[in-house]
Amino acid sequence: MDFRGRQKKLRAALDQRKLDALVVMHLPNVRYLCGFTGSAGVLLAAPRAVFFTDGRYTEQASAQVKGVRVSIATKGMFPAVAAACAKLGLKRIAIESEHLTVAQCSDLEKVLGKGTKLVRLAGAVEELRAEKEAVEIELLRNAVNLSSRLFRPLLKALRGGAAESAVAGKLEFMARRAGAERMSFETIVASGKRSALPHGVASAAKLPAQGFVVLDYGVVLDGYCSDMTRTVHLGKASAEARRLYLAVLDAQQAAIGAVRAGVTAGEIDRAARQELKRARLDRFFTHSTGHGVGLEIHEFPRLAAGSDTILRPGMVITIEPGVYLPGKCGIRIEDMLVVTERGYDVLTPVSKELLELN
Amino acid sequence: MDFRGRQKKLRAALDQRKLDALVVMHLPNVRYLCGFTGSAGVLLAAPRAVFFTDGRYTEQASAQVKGVRVSIATKGMFPAVAAACAKLGLKRIAIESEHLTVAQCSDLEKVLGKGTKLVRLAGAVEELRAEKEAVEIELLRNAVNLSSRLFRPLLKALRGGAAESAVAGKLEFMARRAGAERMSFETIVASGKRSALPHGVASAAKLPAQGFVVLDYGVVLDGYCSDMTRTVHLGKASAEARRLYLAVLDAQQAAIGAVRAGVTAGEIDRAARQELKRARLDRFFTHSTGHGVGLEIHEFPRLAAGSDTILRPGMVITIEPGVYLPGKCGIRIEDMLVVTERGYDVLTPVSKELLELN
Repeated sequence: MDFRGRQKKLRAALDQRKLDALVVMHLPNVRYLCGFTGSAGVLLAAPRAVFFTDGRYTEQASAQVKGVRVSIATKGMFPAVAAACAKLGLKRIAIESEHLTVAQCSDLEKVLGKGTKLVRLAGAVEELRAEKEAVEIELLRNAVNLSSRLFRPLLKALRGGAAESAVAGKLEFMARRAGAERMSFETIVASGKRSALPHGVASAAKLPAQGFVVLDYGVVLDGYCSDMTRTVHLGKASAEARRLYLAVLDAQQAAIGAVRAGVTAGEIDRAARQELKRARLDRFFTHSTGHGVGLEIHEFPRLAAGSDTILRPGMVITIEPGVYLPGKCGIRIEDMLVVTERGYDVLTPVSKELLELN
Repeated sequence: MDFRGRQKKLRAALDQRKLDALVVMHLPNVRYLCGFTGSAGVLLAAPRAVFFTDGRYTEQASAQVKGVRVSIATKGMFPAVAAACAKLGLKRIAIESEHLTVAQCSDLEKVLGKGTKLVRLAGAVEELRAEKEAVEIELLRNAVNLSSRLFRPLLKALRGGAAESAVAGKLEFMARRAGAERMSFETIVASGKRSALPHGVASAAKLPAQGFVVLDYGVVLDGYCSDMTRTVHLGKASAEARRLYLAVLDAQQAAIGAVRAGVTAGEIDRAARQELKRARLDRFFTHSTGHGVGLEIHEFPRLAAGSDTILRPGMVITIEPGVYLPGKCGIRIEDMLVVTERGYDVLTPVSKELLELN
């Protein structure tokens, strides 16, 4: 991990905006910039950066934190940050406006000396995080591989009458056993009519003998998240079910085919929607096409309709169109991929053929 | 669940502060006030309250939401909130300052009409949530009972050489199978020297043949959280290990004994510390004594040194002192209990005798 390089890039972004420092409190941003993985810490990102944590993390911080001085705040984080700002002569201090609460901002303002100014800044670290380093792509690949290896054994748990939550439980147990730190989000097992719920977290509902099951899950490994969705069919799929499935698969592949450095996120989203429109299913695709993924499960960029964010090499994104027929059924197919100069590398090595399980 | 009663109490609290409405966005607060369990919704708590959500939740909101009108926001939540404020003539509008981010506050300000004023308000709903209704106490009891029943079977997974993460995996699998929605926080399995880490989330470390294992876990059932800690000893405990364990147990029981409506949270904390001081271990007790628990794992009140929060009947709290000898070992014992007029009801039906496992 190139912590010093990341800090340098952030400082350049701050310099451009004539900012002396950024108070980094969002923990994934803290981890990204200096390596700290604990639950309490503030990074004062500035030419002479300081990382503040509390007494519980003395040992851990000295082992993990790179490229900045570590300071143990004994009388609260904000007073320590304020003292450092005064000592270092920092005047224009940015905060992460999308993470700091109104109350935290006000608390920080109170302890900062006169003559300092708090400036709202959104997404500066997230912008850096979007382009993954080679080592990060390897870690993401490892996480994707771990979850992909669980897919075949997971299918064995799918039979009519099994509770969705039991299926999720089996998956999560296998994930832990395989070394996952935790699941990267609440596992979705949405079967039968519940497959029409885009966020059908595993419930007590029983799998039907016949129908779709949406399986959307991911793991965290070495801090990095995976995210995949496959939709399988219990019993033999009707011609209509097959038509729906293939329409979603076509849309997913059309969107993947559009991925390349230089195109906008909106173009990727449009590729999926256009394909679904040909099948007259576009109005049943009710969410965006994908999102960045890394230390967090949902990261910049968002692949939504109309987005003018330009894809850059090294971005790691999901492509996950779906159709949801209320009260009937739903289908979603999702891969993770890396954006490259000339196109993309798909990370998810799991077949997307329609599986009909007996 | 007395949603209407809760909304009425909140309105009384707003009236007192001459506020026309509170924009409730913190999801546990939304759930508490109107029953909605989805992931996107804003409650405009006012004399004529409105709950806003998006198209994904049309069905769910109409089934779940009680005591307020449901409105599907098609062009963003904040514009919908602003339009309702204008229509209802609401002028002094409070926000949840501990939850709303600086960016959200600014976005909301932009769409609100002139003549409206945003007022920062902290903890109004949390204050109500602290005193549990009888039905909530039953739900908390159910969650505690579920996790307590897993404790004996969990002990079977504890043997020298087993990975902490495998122990956690087994626990979480059993929890799911028993009907838990999810764990209420990341399971702590901290063994041997790692038991000295107050937040020793289960790692790849192997359990030693001899030494303490801190087991701190909880489940979510019907939305309500449980939280318990037991520390067991692998192999026979030395006289010193036993002395440490009994000192923590004495401290925990002293703190429990001090619980009663009308005393301050600080007094409970002091009871634990005083007991540890007698054993000359108080400086190794490095966190607070407990916290409220309910729809969230950490709720108001906090049982910390010097807190002057007065305990009220119906508050559900944890009591969890610990000692942590860096590089050596740690012990924590935690129960959940209900504050009553005359004392307390302990919810956690699991023995606290020192267990020495072969």
